[in-house]
Amino acid sequence: MKESENNTLNYHVSVDCAIFGFDFSKLNVILMERNFAYNGVEYNDLKLPGDLVRKDEDLDTAASRVLKELTGLENIYLKQFAAIGTPNRLKRFERDMEWLRRIGHPEEVVVTVAYYSLINIERDRIDKSGLPADARWHPVADIKELSFDHMDILTDALITLRNELRSNPIGFELLPPKFTLSQLQKLYEVILGTELDKRNFRKKVSNMPYVVPINEKESGVSHKPARYYIFSKKVYEKTRKNSFDFSV
Amino acid sequence: MKESENNTLNYHVSVDCAIFGFDFSKLNVILMERNFAYNGVEYNDLKLPGDLVRKDEDLDTAASRVLKELTGLENIYLKQFAAIGTPNRLKRFERDMEWLRRIGHPEEVVVTVAYYSLINIERDRIDKSGLPADARWHPVADIKELSFDHMDILTDALITLRNELRSNPIGFELLPPKFTLSQLQKLYEVILGTELDKRNFRKKVSNMPYVVPINEKESGVSHKPARYYIFSKKVYEKTRKNSFDFSV
Repeated sequence: MKESENNTLNYHVSVDCAIFGFDFSKLNVILMERNFAYNGVEYNDLKLPGDLVRKDEDLDTAASRVLKELTGLENIYLKQFAAIGTPNRLKRFERDMEWLRRIGHPEEVVVTVAYYSLINIERDRIDKSGLPADARWHPVADIKELSFDHMDILTDALITLRNELRSNPIGFELLPPKFTLSQLQKLYEVILGTELDKRNFRKKVSNMPYVVPINEKESGVSHKPARYYIFSKKVYEKTRKNSFDFSV
Repeated sequence: MKESENNTLNYHVSVDCAIFGFDFSKLNVILMERNFAYNGVEYNDLKLPGDLVRKDEDLDTAASRVLKELTGLENIYLKQFAAIGTPNRLKRFERDMEWLRRIGHPEEVVVTVAYYSLINIERDRIDKSGLPADARWHPVADIKELSFDHMDILTDALITLRNELRSNPIGFELLPPKFTLSQLQKLYEVILGTELDKRNFRKKVSNMPYVVPINEKESGVSHKPARYYIFSKKVYEKTRKNSFDFSV
């Protein structure tokens, strides 16, 4: 800090979380429903889950708390990706300001720290029934507008997820422990927003020693049963050491 | 935000910057000298440059301002990498608390948003003479302790830089527009903290179409003059599109 503090300000600090889940066909995110009337108009809109950071609470702890209160889950992939302090970021929509007044929320500047989380919907049994009444999974591709600046935060989260997926094996967080190569390809296609050539994709995967075939195939499927694979974090970390390669 | 705000808190928000520069032999960072006496003892310690965020100022704007006030530079690679709100993060050392009281700094919680910046020392002419009297380049490898939690922030910045260097072509920000392959290799060795095999390194580089040889060689050197290369952002972005490869 400099030796002056003119024009500085008190803030409230919040965390907001983009919690992603993959259902083998599309990428989804948990949104909170907000219903209230304002000026005779009824509003039904959506926002990202989040909360103000509490006294003596670390930022990561606050984000973990939001995730746990919502899903019951702990020790889930959760990564801070941005702090946003744009002046007036909560005042974009008149209805948001009205809502803040109603819940007794401070109208001053709120700096928010944004997190994204990756959940395996199947493994973690977080389907509709596992969430509170006002929370629901929404296909990311269908979301057009959110409260406050949450649409910007969601877009940033998605860009971060895409970039991370290109350079780190985080996609496996969204898959069950064993998966087929078709499921893995679909995951990449959905998040990168592009179709991938099956032959090229399999060639790439064959160069990843940490994607390990196991002696088990799908059962109860109408097509030819595919082999299951697992992701070996141990092998990955060995491979990764001292390597660098910023593009193919 | 939830519909309660029990136990929440007012914060001050600051930015802190790890500004890295490479001098062809080692990685350096700009630190601010702090000299003052406390309880009869004279303290000379070092901290990262930073400042409180001002009213109506965006976080990125505040970081750019700190960078510009210090170096005179604008439009430099500057990336937010963490927000830190650990309770009591400013109270680790008694001398820090005394210093805060002297400069009239709020003793309440300060959430800081950390940035790292990459500067080409040669190109940007930011040597010792270009910095204020209390600021100086320090070899990163020599730094053992900093004020507050700044050592943690610097360590995090370095980890982020290493990870980014593995997957993105950011190293070129630290080099002059034209560079030799030996200089490029040295940069990677210094930041990754490891020696690289020359033959393997050149093989990797030959697979990077965006590292382009130009028709110019070193002059005035005692060894065999080496060819210069440039980094083509345009070629990189074309190559990068739709590619993914999270390890070699």
